[in-house]
Amino acid sequence: MRTRFYNAKILTMKDGEEIIDGEIFVKDDHIQYVGPHKHEPSDFDRQINVNGNLLMPGFKNAHTHSAMVFLRSLADDLPLGSWLNDAVFPREAKLTKEDIYHLSKVAILEYLTSGITAVFEMYLTPDSIADAFGEMGMRCVQTGGLNDFSQSVEQMEDWYLRLNKKDEFNSFIPGFHAEYTCSEALLMDVAALAHKYEAPVWCHNSETKSEVESCKQKHDGLTPTQYLDSLGIFDYGGGGYHCVYLSDEDVEIFKKRKMGIVTNPASNAKLASGMLDVTPFLEAGIEMGIGTDGPASNNCLDMFREMFLTEAYAKIRQSNAAALDAAKVLHMATVGGARVMNLKDCDILAEGKKADIIMIDLKKPNMQLVNNILKNLVYAGSKDNVKMTMINGVIKYSDGEFYVGEDIEKIYEKAQEITDRLK
Amino acid sequence: MRTRFYNAKILTMKDGEEIIDGEIFVKDDHIQYVGPHKHEPSDFDRQINVNGNLLMPGFKNAHTHSAMVFLRSLADDLPLGSWLNDAVFPREAKLTKEDIYHLSKVAILEYLTSGITAVFEMYLTPDSIADAFGEMGMRCVQTGGLNDFSQSVEQMEDWYLRLNKKDEFNSFIPGFHAEYTCSEALLMDVAALAHKYEAPVWCHNSETKSEVESCKQKHDGLTPTQYLDSLGIFDYGGGGYHCVYLSDEDVEIFKKRKMGIVTNPASNAKLASGMLDVTPFLEAGIEMGIGTDGPASNNCLDMFREMFLTEAYAKIRQSNAAALDAAKVLHMATVGGARVMNLKDCDILAEGKKADIIMIDLKKPNMQLVNNILKNLVYAGSKDNVKMTMINGVIKYSDGEFYVGEDIEKIYEKAQEITDRLK
Repeated sequence: MRTRFYNAKILTMKDGEEIIDGEIFVKDDHIQYVGPHKHEPSDFDRQINVNGNLLMPGFKNAHTHSAMVFLRSLADDLPLGSWLNDAVFPREAKLTKEDIYHLSKVAILEYLTSGITAVFEMYLTPDSIADAFGEMGMRCVQTGGLNDFSQSVEQMEDWYLRLNKKDEFNSFIPGFHAEYTCSEALLMDVAALAHKYEAPVWCHNSETKSEVESCKQKHDGLTPTQYLDSLGIFDYGGGGYHCVYLSDEDVEIFKKRKMGIVTNPASNAKLASGMLDVTPFLEAGIEMGIGTDGPASNNCLDMFREMFLTEAYAKIRQSNAAALDAAKVLHMATVGGARVMNLKDCDILAEGKKADIIMIDLKKPNMQLVNNILKNLVYAGSKDNVKMTMINGVIKYSDGEFYVGEDIEKIYEKAQEITDRLK
Repeated sequence: MRTRFYNAKILTMKDGEEIIDGEIFVKDDHIQYVGPHKHEPSDFDRQINVNGNLLMPGFKNAHTHSAMVFLRSLADDLPLGSWLNDAVFPREAKLTKEDIYHLSKVAILEYLTSGITAVFEMYLTPDSIADAFGEMGMRCVQTGGLNDFSQSVEQMEDWYLRLNKKDEFNSFIPGFHAEYTCSEALLMDVAALAHKYEAPVWCHNSETKSEVESCKQKHDGLTPTQYLDSLGIFDYGGGGYHCVYLSDEDVEIFKKRKMGIVTNPASNAKLASGMLDVTPFLEAGIEMGIGTDGPASNNCLDMFREMFLTEAYAKIRQSNAAALDAAKVLHMATVGGARVMNLKDCDILAEGKKADIIMIDLKKPNMQLVNNILKNLVYAGSKDNVKMTMINGVIKYSDGEFYVGEDIEKIYEKAQEITDRLK
């Protein structure tokens, strides 16, 4: 299958902010050509006139819990404790792996509407999640949600070995929920697994002030990062989600271990956790991605919102409108995300890379007038501008229609049944 | 012209959060019926099957400078001083009233995509702005942008008398730019005008910390609100835009004078001004609206973003995920906005009210799963959910198409010419 996109503006993300006029050729799952207009009109199965709109790499949603879509708007505007203990945990306890399979599909549809081509997922049943993503044709890098009450290191080893070979859409990186939900014995086993496979390890880290404080109290003044690192968990890298309250010493550990950080600004606002200014991490050379977190704590799976908030927090925290350039945020949402997720071939648009490409509608009024397309996208863009989402060379979403091999009404219906049952 | 919307969910905003299943009949410019399904199939010029989607009052964008769309993304990520002095002011000095007419139209198109049916506008040439809104069929309440360098009280009196009679779309409320751009003599004249017509007066107020500090230095420790009130400007009410740094004493003045407040959270973030927690004002019973501010300082004209940020700021500022309920924010974005803009007939969906109605697509994945439609809308909604925007009984935008009596490509083209000329 060969596809030609022509008459396009192209933001490859290879050379910073540069946008070229040209064409992209896709063969099966990968990109064959990116560059200026080329006379090669024959030998294509389809030719798509981009009409001067923008082609760019898909967004990477670098932290999410997809199946939590069943909790969306169920118990908002509650204090965090009630939310978790009264609304989330009792319902999660009743979830089956089949439920999670069906619920994940609803989130996948929403990712497509936001131009998201890959997610970094953490939830309860990796096998059924991998099935949902594999069948719908979206990339999913999973990590363990291991804690004292759910999952085991043995299971995680099994997922690590199997899911990394499952198909072209799925992969697995070891991980655990967080310092505060895991015993030291369990964490030592995680460290042993990391050592056995020389593997990176990810977890929620320093999301709230109280998490950091209580870790310091338990562990002789050590922050979660210091404590976990002292156990050898990060000896082969990895990273942290949220990281709202890292100390300077923590940042040094992230640098030394070449670890990544994923910021989740909307979730941090909605759960009143705080505001992360990402600029010190970027200046320290730490690779960063942006994630929506789960749909119960955000509640939107929308990378445009996250990009704006990432900008907003830096500017407000520094009282400086020049605190963070839009290009850096767009890098985080695409290239940075791909790197922290170890999706080496999904970062930029270039020959040989995977064809994970989105088309941005530049004809909508929010992309007018044109002084700077990239800044228009970051500051004024919305889901409404996502005209097409292609993953692995296959168009999954175009002009509001889904091409996922299933009737979306049936996906909603099944997931709503589950939601109603769990109430 | 009689239109029947049937098979609808309806959020009238009359009774808080209640959503009913039913129908709406529109005759010419107003609503004839809102209620349960009614057997009256004949005598309609058109019958629209809402397919279970949501009808609700249009959003009121309660503070904007529409024509600034020519500055979008031109000079972002700059310190505020450079932004204003090097990018904004020199270009604004070259604007003609015809330029502003054409540029405003681009913003109007964007308002329609966000379900905005009325705006509270402040910019340089009220007559040509009123022409643009009147011709495009969108409601525009203008206020004066008067300051020491632009506009006069005589002009403002003329606009007040003429624009309030111009047509069904336009109205005018006296106003001035801000305390820091107006001499005391000018402000006294504004107060005299307010007294002559017993009229409310609006202005930018306490947007930044330095604005408040420098007012206090100049005026014996009086804040902008105290100083302006001491001149009699607010004797017949009015209100303030931004109001990020009001004191408790200021809030008392707002209460006493029955003044309104419009928050502009995205602009306050992008220009690094600060974060307003609106909850003390709401608790004080002050009527509040939400505005995007101009497209150069936001850069998006998107009420969904503003609603989320209004929530986010309250939750973060209070470190409390329960700080502000979604229903209150939706009230601000619709009913509250209409009230501060003096659009008495455009606040809710009820018999006799103006037919300013939007349709929200509930079938998009971000509106799934359904636990609470209102919270889905506020926390997860986006422009992508705006299926239709009707103003004054006329559908202006539907399924991505504009019905504004003009070719939108030509609107863009003309406005881009102006933008390029002013560079």
